[in-house]
Amino acid sequence: MPEHSAASRLRLSGLCFFLQILNILLFAVFVRYSPESSSSLCSPQLNCSRRNQDSAFQHPRFRDVHLQVLLGFGLLVAFLGRYGPGSVVISILLVSFAIQWAILIQGFLYFFLNGKIYVGARSVVSADFCTAAVLISTGAVLGRVNPVQMLLLALLEVTVCTLNEYILLSLMGVSDSGRSLTVHVFGAYFGLMVSRVLHLPPTDKRKREDQQDVGHQPDVFAVVGTIYLWTFWPSFTSATTADDSAEPWAVLNTYFSLVASTIATVILSPVLYEESTPRMVQIQDATLAGAAVMGMAGEMLVTPFGALIAGFLAGLICPLGFRFFTPVLHSRMKIQDTCGVHNVHGLPGILGALLGVLLTLLATADTFGDRLELVFPLVAQGSRSAADQAFWQLCALPLTLLLATLGGCLTGAVLKTKALRSPPDKGNLERTILWEVDKEGCDPRTGGMEPGISTLV
Amino acid sequence: MPEHSAASRLRLSGLCFFLQILNILLFAVFVRYSPESSSSLCSPQLNCSRRNQDSAFQHPRFRDVHLQVLLGFGLLVAFLGRYGPGSVVISILLVSFAIQWAILIQGFLYFFLNGKIYVGARSVVSADFCTAAVLISTGAVLGRVNPVQMLLLALLEVTVCTLNEYILLSLMGVSDSGRSLTVHVFGAYFGLMVSRVLHLPPTDKRKREDQQDVGHQPDVFAVVGTIYLWTFWPSFTSATTADDSAEPWAVLNTYFSLVASTIATVILSPVLYEESTPRMVQIQDATLAGAAVMGMAGEMLVTPFGALIAGFLAGLICPLGFRFFTPVLHSRMKIQDTCGVHNVHGLPGILGALLGVLLTLLATADTFGDRLELVFPLVAQGSRSAADQAFWQLCALPLTLLLATLGGCLTGAVLKTKALRSPPDKGNLERTILWEVDKEGCDPRTGGMEPGISTLV
Amino acid sequence: MPEHSAASRLRLSGLCFFLQILNILLFAVFVRYSPESSSSLCSPQLNCSRRNQDSAFQHPRFRDVHLQVLLGFGLLVAFLGRYGPGSVVISILLVSFAIQWAILIQGFLYFFLNGKIYVGARSVVSADFCTAAVLISTGAVLGRVNPVQMLLLALLEVTVCTLNEYILLSLMGVSDSGRSLTVHVFGAYFGLMVSRVLHLPPTDKRKREDQQDVGHQPDVFAVVGTIYLWTFWPSFTSATTADDSAEPWAVLNTYFSLVASTIATVILSPVLYEESTPRMVQIQDATLAGAAVMGMAGEMLVTPFGALIAGFLAGLICPLGFRFFTPVLHSRMKIQDTCGVHNVHGLPGILGALLGVLLTLLATADTFGDRLELVFPLVAQGSRSAADQAFWQLCALPLTLLLATLGGCLTGAVLKTKALRSPPDKGNLERTILWEVDKEGCDPRTGGMEPGISTLV
Repeated sequence: MPEHSAASRLRLSGLCFFLQILNILLFAVFVRYSPESSSSLCSPQLNCSRRNQDSAFQHPRFRDVHLQVLLGFGLLVAFLGRYGPGSVVISILLVSFAIQWAILIQGFLYFFLNGKIYVGARSVVSADFCTAAVLISTGAVLGRVNPVQMLLLALLEVTVCTLNEYILLSLMGVSDSGRSLTVHVFGAYFGLMVSRVLHLPPTDKRKREDQQDVGHQPDVFAVVGTIYLWTFWPSFTSATTADDSAEPWAVLNTYFSLVASTIATVILSPVLYEESTPRMVQIQDATLAGAAVMGMAGEMLVTPFGALIAGFLAGLICPLGFRFFTPVLHSRMKIQDTCGVHNVHGLPGILGALLGVLLTLLATADTFGDRLELVFPLVAQGSRSAADQAFWQLCALPLTLLLATLGGCLTGAVLKTKALRSPPDKGNLERTILWEVDKEGCDPRTGGMEPGISTLV
Repeated sequence: MPEHSAASRLRLSGLCFFLQILNILLFAVFVRYSPESSSSLCSPQLNCSRRNQDSAFQHPRFRDVHLQVLLGFGLLVAFLGRYGPGSVVISILLVSFAIQWAILIQGFLYFFLNGKIYVGARSVVSADFCTAAVLISTGAVLGRVNPVQMLLLALLEVTVCTLNEYILLSLMGVSDSGRSLTVHVFGAYFGLMVSRVLHLPPTDKRKREDQQDVGHQPDVFAVVGTIYLWTFWPSFTSATTADDSAEPWAVLNTYFSLVASTIATVILSPVLYEESTPRMVQIQDATLAGAAVMGMAGEMLVTPFGALIAGFLAGLICPLGFRFFTPVLHSRMKIQDTCGVHNVHGLPGILGALLGVLLTLLATADTFGDRLELVFPLVAQGSRSAADQAFWQLCALPLTLLLATLGGCLTGAVLKTKALRSPPDKGNLERTILWEVDKEGCDPRTGGMEPGISTLV
Repeated sequence: MPEHSAASRLRLSGLCFFLQILNILLFAVFVRYSPESSSSLCSPQLNCSRRNQDSAFQHPRFRDVHLQVLLGFGLLVAFLGRYGPGSVVISILLVSFAIQWAILIQGFLYFFLNGKIYVGARSVVSADFCTAAVLISTGAVLGRVNPVQMLLLALLEVTVCTLNEYILLSLMGVSDSGRSLTVHVFGAYFGLMVSRVLHLPPTDKRKREDQQDVGHQPDVFAVVGTIYLWTFWPSFTSATTADDSAEPWAVLNTYFSLVASTIATVILSPVLYEESTPRMVQIQDATLAGAAVMGMAGEMLVTPFGALIAGFLAGLICPLGFRFFTPVLHSRMKIQDTCGVHNVHGLPGILGALLGVLLTLLATADTFGDRLELVFPLVAQGSRSAADQAFWQLCALPLTLLLATLGGCLTGAVLKTKALRSPPDKGNLERTILWEVDKEGCDPRTGGMEPGISTLV
């Protein structure tokens, strides 16, 4: 029905318009650039509400900002590996909205002073982190939600993610500079819960799995995505700890982790599958996993071989998860995980968090030197013992899982409301949760999901 | 005829050889590296002929240079979105020639001292800006000029563009750090005028329009191009104002503008077209428009929401231009605009220039602080009032349009001379203006332009 | 036979496992991060075993590290131009292994102190250089060795390459900052010798040549590869000489060289082939050649036109080599050169080395100024005359050729041992040296090499 589809077309348009006008108004009322000579004018609250790396951000480098943006796209490119160019438009829309929204929400928590939010390069970097979590979550539900639902998902997730980040980093004093917990674990489990709530009972779910990798095109994107990740992720894990005067251990550790996880995938792939060399998409997943595991531990590892071992384990966990865990998730727990974010971000993120706890326990002023002040400021100041810090780091994991699960359930419930679904014109439930674009020419008998994917590719 | 095509093949070869030898000779005679300890040896003329940002260029960063090069390629990639890999060879040839030529021409105006041109990283950045204008212009005529004509276009445009830049920046003291006027507006209208002069009266022009976006391949390039633009354009608009001690407002403003223009395109696209989400190429155009509008205003905006509004308007103007303006340009004014540079660079550039004038009027020492010295050195020194500066900024727009129009007419007339056309072997005019490669196997009845395009893709 | 192929599949897996465990153990025993405050704690031996650029590495920049990684991938992308995404998996595996191995081997020679190897950003950059040589060598034999053989090639080449580098840079005091000799020439001739030893007498070799460029896909990669090379190679040639206080001459020289070599290829291509414009792959080769020629001379050239001339010559040599030299190599000397590394890296590298010798002869304190200390520390300290330095630079070329040839022969002999070949199931020699993946469905009559290639593309 033309009027129907016109309505649904314009619904996205209208929502975007409303949200953008809202953003502009909120920016006009609240957001200002931080004063020029920020070091002198800045109030204590403005600078110290952020936990530790004040000195590291003295010179907020444009580069880092760009790299974060790019990383956002690095993730996009990762999605491309499975869904082709068509899905990027939605991803860029999500990024565009989520960054503005994250700057606002994070601004109210972190940079709020005298009724104004003072933003700078640091705010954009924080917003980029948050946007990355949103992109990870969408990876779990891609192909089963329409763009309007995606925007609402971003709206809600940014809020919960910022809250989680605020509790962990500011209130609990947890050290998670590369965001193993607040981005990878949070994003993955949030997305999985949304996927669970949006689960549709009947028709051929089996088809999902073998649709994961299709054709030749994706491989090209997997290559480009892998290159981007190798190039820019080391900066991601070290964005908030980079310090010109110290050797970039977080960068080097990430680097070693990537190397080892790649080799681990090459080792495991022929054992698990009938192919002698892994496909490019698997290498990309290994790269993501090897980077996710370094999120928390990246700046804590004081020996290169630790990074090699952690990366190696992450590179083993990821294909094992795809082979044995994803089918179980799917059949038993009714969670579809379109892009395998559980294996790529969730499990390696948890592994990284546990590794971080272990390393915190072992942290001493001897091994860390000046670095202790950067990584564990509370420990360095003597207000906490290393064991206390390790306890808080450990507590952060279940808390993140809890918030991600609750937030995911809530968001899923909101997305499931009838008003947000595409108007069901034949009473066929599944099809209405697909991309609306694909509504025409989709045979209900063949199962609702396939066309959504096939046109995306 | 084999000997004919051999002659035409070797014509490009011969022209390149001649120009390269000329460049080498001119470089050998005139160009030297600027002395090692540039701060002490540099004469006043050498440093002060450049308008303001002396301190900003104290440490000419390699990064910026690279980013500019890359941006040149960012533009290439943008072209790729419509013409595929084949067109890149010509683009790289153009870049290779235009950079050398721009270093020479700009050197004579800016860096000439004691009979030598002293070049450095700054010269290359300037030459990159100029090359960007050439690439924009070729976007208007792509597919209708042969490589020999393109090289001559670059030769002439670099000259006029440098002249325009010199008048605006050095003589009139206009502030245009991100080059809204000297690159975007100049490049777009220069290209449009060349296109007008090269216009061919009859045969099926209608075909042009629906050839603009073809197949699947372009989308891949549009994705890559968009990522490049997002990543590196913020550096382009801030290349000459980047200052390590200040917050990178030009970068942040560009960033906010990109975000808003992307959302604007997502809003407008379903209204204008029958699709619920825009295609990737439209997102890329929105990105370009959002960046072009920040060219002049990027360093002048002191609030983020201003950048959001400007980007939003640019993101609306661009698809509206494609929908309503391009057909009028084509049918009434007989201007074909292959890549839509008028909508993507011309209109947003003008909008950005007008915004810059408005912001200059509002500029006070209070709102700008130390930044005033960087952005409006003449105002900060007291030799001009803000209103005077705004007047000069406003004058720069018609002057740029005038020079671009005159230069474009002249260049078009030169390119139209019979000697430069491909040898017409069947008296069929249109075909001879195509790429010579396509001369064989092209049926005159089907219209001359199509084969040129189809083989390019 | 399934059990056969399972065995061969698992052989790669097992070898990777063994090598990775070995690396982890060696890292655990030997490798530590260099102490935090490296300037104070570092022993003289640690800092001074490296030849000159101590000050340049004061602030090891992350950027450079990343760029090197990326460059590794830049090379990968270059291979992609001919072999498509499939070959990248192996390339990334090679990079992952070679970097770890190079850090170990180089560490024992350069950074060994008190039984530990102290690594930092500098070590990774050095290891990246070495990995680049390995990638160049594989370019010569790609398609004719299986992944297991490739890994062993990397294992051996890294060792010999590091030895060569140590002799040249540390013992002989040769200046080769952009690695014309130690990376380009060494990598090319090492690969060619391996190719010679692995040569298979009979079946249709003629097919090789016209398989070099296939289809449309490669062009896409050639575009991306060229952009990467333009963007990041100038940093490669200047990685060890970059100095914030000096104008980046090595960068600018590389830049000018790229420009000139691109134009040279556009000039020569229509003369050598029947096409009016070169294909993208040729432009990419020209870019590589233009960069290779600047390896040694990049920091020595004190005038831009010298770089233009050198790049121009490199851009001429490269297509001439492809046209006239590769067939001779192939038919007379029985050396197959899959990716044409001889023309792209070998010949321009030799040209660059000879140019470096010439420039060293001409080096005086007048023309170099403060730069003399950076480029030729021994000359600046007065312990060598410029002529002596030039003599050593000249000696480095035959020595590198000798070591590359010997190392290549040795490696080829090792790779040729029966145990490393794929299990010959029909006694057909050629097929066993192919990718094992392609063993099935490959007709021995059509010649062993073709299937290997065709599935790679």
